[in-house]
Amino acid sequence: MLLTAQARGVFPIAPTPFLDDGAIDTSSIDRLADFYKGCGSTGVTVLGQLGEAPKLEHAESVAIARQMIRRMAELPVVVGVSAPGFAAMRALTREVMDAGAAGVMIAPPNTLRTDDQIVAYYRQAAEAIGTDVPFVLQDYPLTFSVQISPGVIRRIVTDLPSCVMLKHEDWPGLEKISALRAFEKDGSMRRIAILCGNGGLFLDYEMERGADGANTGYCFPDMLCDVVRLSAAGQREEAHDLFDAHLPLLRYEQQPGIGLAVRKYILMRRGILSSPAQRKPAVALTAAARGEVDHLLMRLARHDPRARFDPA
Amino acid sequence: MLLTAQARGVFPIAPTPFLDDGAIDTSSIDRLADFYKGCGSTGVTVLGQLGEAPKLEHAESVAIARQMIRRMAELPVVVGVSAPGFAAMRALTREVMDAGAAGVMIAPPNTLRTDDQIVAYYRQAAEAIGTDVPFVLQDYPLTFSVQISPGVIRRIVTDLPSCVMLKHEDWPGLEKISALRAFEKDGSMRRIAILCGNGGLFLDYEMERGADGANTGYCFPDMLCDVVRLSAAGQREEAHDLFDAHLPLLRYEQQPGIGLAVRKYILMRRGILSSPAQRKPAVALTAAARGEVDHLLMRLARHDPRARFDPA
Amino acid sequence: MLLTAQARGVFPIAPTPFLDDGAIDTSSIDRLADFYKGCGSTGVTVLGQLGEAPKLEHAESVAIARQMIRRMAELPVVVGVSAPGFAAMRALTREVMDAGAAGVMIAPPNTLRTDDQIVAYYRQAAEAIGTDVPFVLQDYPLTFSVQISPGVIRRIVTDLPSCVMLKHEDWPGLEKISALRAFEKDGSMRRIAILCGNGGLFLDYEMERGADGANTGYCFPDMLCDVVRLSAAGQREEAHDLFDAHLPLLRYEQQPGIGLAVRKYILMRRGILSSPAQRKPAVALTAAARGEVDHLLMRLARHDPRARFDPA
Amino acid sequence: MLLTAQARGVFPIAPTPFLDDGAIDTSSIDRLADFYKGCGSTGVTVLGQLGEAPKLEHAESVAIARQMIRRMAELPVVVGVSAPGFAAMRALTREVMDAGAAGVMIAPPNTLRTDDQIVAYYRQAAEAIGTDVPFVLQDYPLTFSVQISPGVIRRIVTDLPSCVMLKHEDWPGLEKISALRAFEKDGSMRRIAILCGNGGLFLDYEMERGADGANTGYCFPDMLCDVVRLSAAGQREEAHDLFDAHLPLLRYEQQPGIGLAVRKYILMRRGILSSPAQRKPAVALTAAARGEVDHLLMRLARHDPRARFDPA
Repeated sequence: MLLTAQARGVFPIAPTPFLDDGAIDTSSIDRLADFYKGCGSTGVTVLGQLGEAPKLEHAESVAIARQMIRRMAELPVVVGVSAPGFAAMRALTREVMDAGAAGVMIAPPNTLRTDDQIVAYYRQAAEAIGTDVPFVLQDYPLTFSVQISPGVIRRIVTDLPSCVMLKHEDWPGLEKISALRAFEKDGSMRRIAILCGNGGLFLDYEMERGADGANTGYCFPDMLCDVVRLSAAGQREEAHDLFDAHLPLLRYEQQPGIGLAVRKYILMRRGILSSPAQRKPAVALTAAARGEVDHLLMRLARHDPRARFDPA
Repeated sequence: MLLTAQARGVFPIAPTPFLDDGAIDTSSIDRLADFYKGCGSTGVTVLGQLGEAPKLEHAESVAIARQMIRRMAELPVVVGVSAPGFAAMRALTREVMDAGAAGVMIAPPNTLRTDDQIVAYYRQAAEAIGTDVPFVLQDYPLTFSVQISPGVIRRIVTDLPSCVMLKHEDWPGLEKISALRAFEKDGSMRRIAILCGNGGLFLDYEMERGADGANTGYCFPDMLCDVVRLSAAGQREEAHDLFDAHLPLLRYEQQPGIGLAVRKYILMRRGILSSPAQRKPAVALTAAARGEVDHLLMRLARHDPRARFDPA
Repeated sequence: MLLTAQARGVFPIAPTPFLDDGAIDTSSIDRLADFYKGCGSTGVTVLGQLGEAPKLEHAESVAIARQMIRRMAELPVVVGVSAPGFAAMRALTREVMDAGAAGVMIAPPNTLRTDDQIVAYYRQAAEAIGTDVPFVLQDYPLTFSVQISPGVIRRIVTDLPSCVMLKHEDWPGLEKISALRAFEKDGSMRRIAILCGNGGLFLDYEMERGADGANTGYCFPDMLCDVVRLSAAGQREEAHDLFDAHLPLLRYEQQPGIGLAVRKYILMRRGILSSPAQRKPAVALTAAARGEVDHLLMRLARHDPRARFDPA
Repeated sequence: MLLTAQARGVFPIAPTPFLDDGAIDTSSIDRLADFYKGCGSTGVTVLGQLGEAPKLEHAESVAIARQMIRRMAELPVVVGVSAPGFAAMRALTREVMDAGAAGVMIAPPNTLRTDDQIVAYYRQAAEAIGTDVPFVLQDYPLTFSVQISPGVIRRIVTDLPSCVMLKHEDWPGLEKISALRAFEKDGSMRRIAILCGNGGLFLDYEMERGADGANTGYCFPDMLCDVVRLSAAGQREEAHDLFDAHLPLLRYEQQPGIGLAVRKYILMRRGILSSPAQRKPAVALTAAARGEVDHLLMRLARHDPRARFDPA
């Protein structure tokens, strides 16, 4: 069951659970999978930036992907395979696709500058992993310093049939969604799935611009699923009301560098991760930050009764 | 009346009003000044990034600063004087200080990399403008790509008595405020004023970490003033309630590139600017974006009855 | 006499001479002009990066350009007008064109990333300065971090008739010259003049790829003129022999940051500048570096008897 | 036999030889090793940037290092282990040290900005690979965009006893060597070996500033060895004469992006590599560029009779 351009809904970006000694926490991986399925997710993405992918050895990466694929059962699992070279990218792709992954996600290396360099990179990457492997184009200029204009996305989509989804996290990015959907309408680009990252910070309006869902690691994917559903059903104000109730926390999580620590801490308080441990290099939450997150959770619980978690 | 390290409250970052033909809109400058004073601002900053400073000729910059200084009367006006070279920085500083400015603001050029380079730059800048001119250190890595660690700020503050304020807009930045206040407590750094930028996106917790107020261009400075006042008075939940009501719009405004267009549009709808015009290069709001802003204003009005504006 | 796409030969990039107290050294400007004319230069460029343009006040910039234009008499003078905003760019352009400049040079701001952004910037710049003002496109990725592909240069040249010259200093850049000349041959781009910068480090082969000459600040422009002449005349090995004799010094000068100090020191030893002074921020030569330059000059004199200078 | 701070001489940076089909060319690895030994090299570095390390799978990297270690016999082999995460860095280090490597080389990730971040990174890296493994600090701002000041190098050297060598390729960098040697003289830093990269472009004066040798991939390591020997023996003018004869080619090789293609082509013409093939992404030499290299080789042969190679 391969990923297609018809994908929609919420693909949470999964963190990689570690035990306090740095070993991979396999029981938490199962809990994560069950949690995502229980929320109404339509898939999941592992080994992204958030998943601490560069800190894993190859065999660990494969094992994590395999376990998630098995546990998610019929739901599609996308695997991040970004690597400094095509040999490692191809090797990981082959193993996870053999294990049943639905597709892979590829971010641009931060050395790319011109439009032609970007297009050439994705052409070579698609060839390296095999043109039969569906891939997600990750467009995240804030982190990767590579700016991919709508016209360049159209060139990639047109040249490479295996490009089926955009992980959209340009910032600002609302006009980009509109531009891509306009390309589809005027017939100059085939349809691709657009799932939004950026921590979900603009998911409310991204849905209204034509996005198909969310592809981010916010620690309440339940809310993401509900907002996507409400928005798709035309219940605009209800979607915004729910989204706005989460925005103070969502904004806090979206801080570069410490976002992952916040997410792991909350997922622990929600009973899913057994430890908030990260591998080095890592930024830990200070007591002050933990207090702020606790405060945000307490305020959130007042507005969204479904937002449950363990006492701090 | 020079700026001192005791500054606090809200210094809105003023946009520069233009008429549709690109000329400076002097009557809107007066309305802006009156609006800021009416909100409870304790000062104002002109000719920052938001003020389209690089698009102005020297004589225009001086004229804008002069008018704002005159109209703000006894309230302090800080003038952005960042320039690619010290000759222009000194020239502008001299003229605006002669006209009654309270101090100037200096951003680091984006070529600085090492700690020593940053310290050396501010030493040369302080000498260039005159060591009797109070200056605000602008710390905005997202835009300037210069990362100034707390230890480097301490070196600058220690070396340069004329550095009296930090425009804090590192991201993430909460720990930075705590680190600087800890330096003050352990006696290793004298006190400076810390006013927060970043569109106000973290003002709620920044105040709790020890900030003295806000120094940003959010189009409802009335809210910023209230949050700073409530937070300083220990009315924590009230401060957060008010802040959270504005967060959806504030987040929307904080988008790089189009934030200024949003702000000018809202300030026009609030009856302060006569035109949303920017000088080139500029990004205009699309109809879709205007619709989103209108929607956000409508929703805001439900939560904060003081948030008034003209019909779209 | 405006700059045209038929320009060729050597346009030295002039440093701005200062006295030890930081004032502009007008008598050295005259000597520079006479020296360039005496060398066989076909023009000169003032107020480039090398000319410490950002350290000058507006009135100083105009005065320097005026003096150089007057003294160069019938030879064309190009003036660097790069500025953070179009208002300052337009103002300087107007004054120097009124004073008789042949054209202006515009570098891209280092915020540009995508192809479309680059093209849009030059379109706006050309409109801002007036479409009747010939301009030189400065392509210097090492310093400006903006990569302009041959296809983008073609778009700019095609869209903007006032773009008449490329200051070519991409690195590596030989294939770029070939690509542009191929565009001309296949009729997809009109001819433009290509003069090479990069300190002249590849001038030998750049000429063979189709460049029209040099536009750089190497302190022996006499050599640049001879190499351009020999190469144009088909005396290939003679051109390389002369170039190679200068290469050790030329390479030394080409170091970022200290290149200007080396050039001013040598121009002083050649009797043209009265002081090696730069305005701050500046990097001075250490005694060790001065010793290395003296050593290089001594070795050069053995190979090129025309390389004359005063004793250290 | 581990690498120590007493290392000196020439450690060529070895390219990774591939066959035309992309497989590793093991017979060329042996020829490379023999060639380096025959030249008088005192060691060799594999799997650096030049060695296309990111394009290799883990098992290939280990195999290449093992073969080179075996063939170099008693001479030390340094292995590049830079990786996006510490898990992969540790895994590769362990395997190559077990196989007999003398030490490893670590480049900074290009996300590091402040002095503290750089020091922290190397502390974590040294701990990750094991504090008993000697490592080379690679200081290459042009490629990695990380600027490491002399004071920061001193902090790293002081904190981490396993840091024994600097691969010096800052640009400009002569003053940096002087600054580090001055630290040693004033007793504030222990001695480390300084071997210079940057394609050797400043090796002549770097030796005079106190460098211990070269650590670069110039295709005539024989010349590097001779220059290091002559310079160490005080035969200054002879060292410069030989260096200058190679400078036109050395400069040509030093072009970013295509330098590796030039080196593989020349090493093929010297009978060492059986193919100039690179893995993708790669830049190939055009016919024009090959012609220029042939021309440079022909001119070099006139000046340095030892510079031998096969007819083109």
